Amino acid sequence: MRGSFVRAAVIYGAGDVRVEHLPDPVIKEPTDALVRVVRACVCGSDLHPYHSKPASERASTIGHEFVGVVEETGSQVTTLSMGDFVIAPFAISDNTCDFCREGLHTACRAGGFWNSGDVGGGQAEAVRVPLADGTLVKAGVGEDSDLLPSLLTLSDVFLTGHHAAVMGGVSPRTTVAVVGDGAVGLSAVLAAKRLGAERIILMGRHKVRTDLGVEWGATDVVAERGAEGIEAVRELTGGDGAHAVLEAVGYRDAYDMAVGVVRAGGVISRVGVPQYEEAPIGFGSLFGRNVRLAGGPAPVRAYIEELLPEVLDGRIEPGRVFDRTVALDDIADAYRAMDERTSLKVLVQP
Amino acid sequence: MRGSFVRAAVIYGAGDVRVEHLPDPVIKEPTDALVRVVRACVCGSDLHPYHSKPASERASTIGHEFVGVVEETGSQVTTLSMGDFVIAPFAISDNTCDFCREGLHTACRAGGFWNSGDVGGGQAEAVRVPLADGTLVKAGVGEDSDLLPSLLTLSDVFLTGHHAAVMGGVSPRTTVAVVGDGAVGLSAVLAAKRLGAERIILMGRHKVRTDLGVEWGATDVVAERGAEGIEAVRELTGGDGAHAVLEAVGYRDAYDMAVGVVRAGGVISRVGVPQYEEAPIGFGSLFGRNVRLAGGPAPVRAYIEELLPEVLDGRIEPGRVFDRTVALDDIADAYRAMDERTSLKVLVQP
Repeated sequence: MRGSFVRAAVIYGAGDVRVEHLPDPVIKEPTDALVRVVRACVCGSDLHPYHSKPASERASTIGHEFVGVVEETGSQVTTLSMGDFVIAPFAISDNTCDFCREGLHTACRAGGFWNSGDVGGGQAEAVRVPLADGTLVKAGVGEDSDLLPSLLTLSDVFLTGHHAAVMGGVSPRTTVAVVGDGAVGLSAVLAAKRLGAERIILMGRHKVRTDLGVEWGATDVVAERGAEGIEAVRELTGGDGAHAVLEAVGYRDAYDMAVGVVRAGGVISRVGVPQYEEAPIGFGSLFGRNVRLAGGPAPVRAYIEELLPEVLDGRIEPGRVFDRTVALDDIADAYRAMDERTSLKVLVQP
Repeated sequence: MRGSFVRAAVIYGAGDVRVEHLPDPVIKEPTDALVRVVRACVCGSDLHPYHSKPASERASTIGHEFVGVVEETGSQVTTLSMGDFVIAPFAISDNTCDFCREGLHTACRAGGFWNSGDVGGGQAEAVRVPLADGTLVKAGVGEDSDLLPSLLTLSDVFLTGHHAAVMGGVSPRTTVAVVGDGAVGLSAVLAAKRLGAERIILMGRHKVRTDLGVEWGATDVVAERGAEGIEAVRELTGGDGAHAVLEAVGYRDAYDMAVGVVRAGGVISRVGVPQYEEAPIGFGSLFGRNVRLAGGPAPVRAYIEELLPEVLDGRIEPGRVFDRTVALDDIADAYRAMDERTSLKVLVQP
């Protein structure tokens, strides 16, 4: 047992992530569970506040991807027991409302997100999980399982890539272009391959990363960016472009590349959190060619049960995106390494 | 037979549409047909050059919606004969390339558009039709048919509304909002109803028009615009907004309204030609709520054969959007009336 405090990552502003002692979370609602975190990690989207959050004297908790063990459950929790090993999606949801039934758990009527209100973050020793029956998914493994890295990707990164592919309508008939060779982009390659895509063009220039992408199903790698990158993808597709462009970056130049490489009648499916609000969608960019735009925060809860068996039996190993592990106390190193791109994605061990 | 000239509408610049004598079109390619125009009309999109085209000494032909009778066919035309009554879609297509087979005739590899290169416009006595076998669809009626107005809507306006509904994924489970009570917006109402939508909210403030919308299936009419219009639609939908928003205007404020009234996980389907290039698509507008964007120029050729029987047997009467008829020589009156909104859509009789 811990004392009355837990260690947790907090951010004070750009470049300033620390580990502090916060009050040990307790059950507040009868639908809560307490989860001791076994593995967490740093998300590409965590780097946005790491780049730009204004400095503040007040710390905010951070992190939204974790797996762990149930320590305690509220009186109304019926599907979970102490000791269950669980996967926590990056959104809290009741899994029963109409949005959840439609598979859009990120819009759950009762739900929410980590690091909001009185809910803490996933980069911590322990977390209070609201709506535990809806939010958490039992994985049926022990905390010493070799599968922890891959199971952890079901809390966000792999299923975000999967969401890009699903919203992009990827099928065996679809030529796919993936913009970005970060952990989400590589996950999108794996997801597109799993959905049957035979032609997957990966746009990225970090060879160690694109090598993993090739292993996961990318048939072509385009290192060029901007107009040259667009030209290269068009050449590879007989001048037409790709049916489905999976945009896994979030910067405006990535969107512009996506517009440049998408085929008439195709779809740009975005899962990189946009760091822009306005962008071209008029006659010359999307409308004239009937190009569709899709995507958003992945409702990973909707996908976990479908993908979990393939992780458990080793058919897919999405955990290979992790190329480094740090202790929670050293999490500032994890942010630095991902920011400097010396690490693809860092696993955090509390 | 005509002489060596045909009368045709031409535009010299904003507000300046005239009827002139142009050389009688002749067969140039063996795949051409010559069509004598029986009925044409003015499109909402014709009003864009009517508003903003810079004045020029050189006239451009105009018009892209017509039905007529085949007068002559090139040596390679196999499916059409002299005397056939045909519907001309607003895009020229071979109906055989991969894009056409996918139903995206507006991206036909061999195709094109009226009023481009050496192809004239539909607001004329006669037109040369390239790729006639692919482009034209026989209607099987005589030129004295009462169905001419409705058949003419299959060249653009009704099937543009239909395209909005199809791209919006309209079904019996879909709450629909239609932005705009012009001829395309009303057509979108009719199309949504035909696809089974039970709740159709029409945003428009011209009572004569919205009355036709109600007759065609609109269950609610919202006359307010901007923030008030958004509020009204949200109230009608329990705060959620509509699953499918069919945007049939093309101005930026119509897009902003569409963003405001679309439900999380829903789709904005645009068929109004955008009069803007950049618009909000970031976290706060589309991404955060997984809202999709679809639409573009309708590949009407892909839809004609499906909808034609329903027009022929009177199940649908999309031609009711026409509220005035002018002779070709008076076409300037048609533009003026539509521009001043004293007419919804004007039929033109050469």
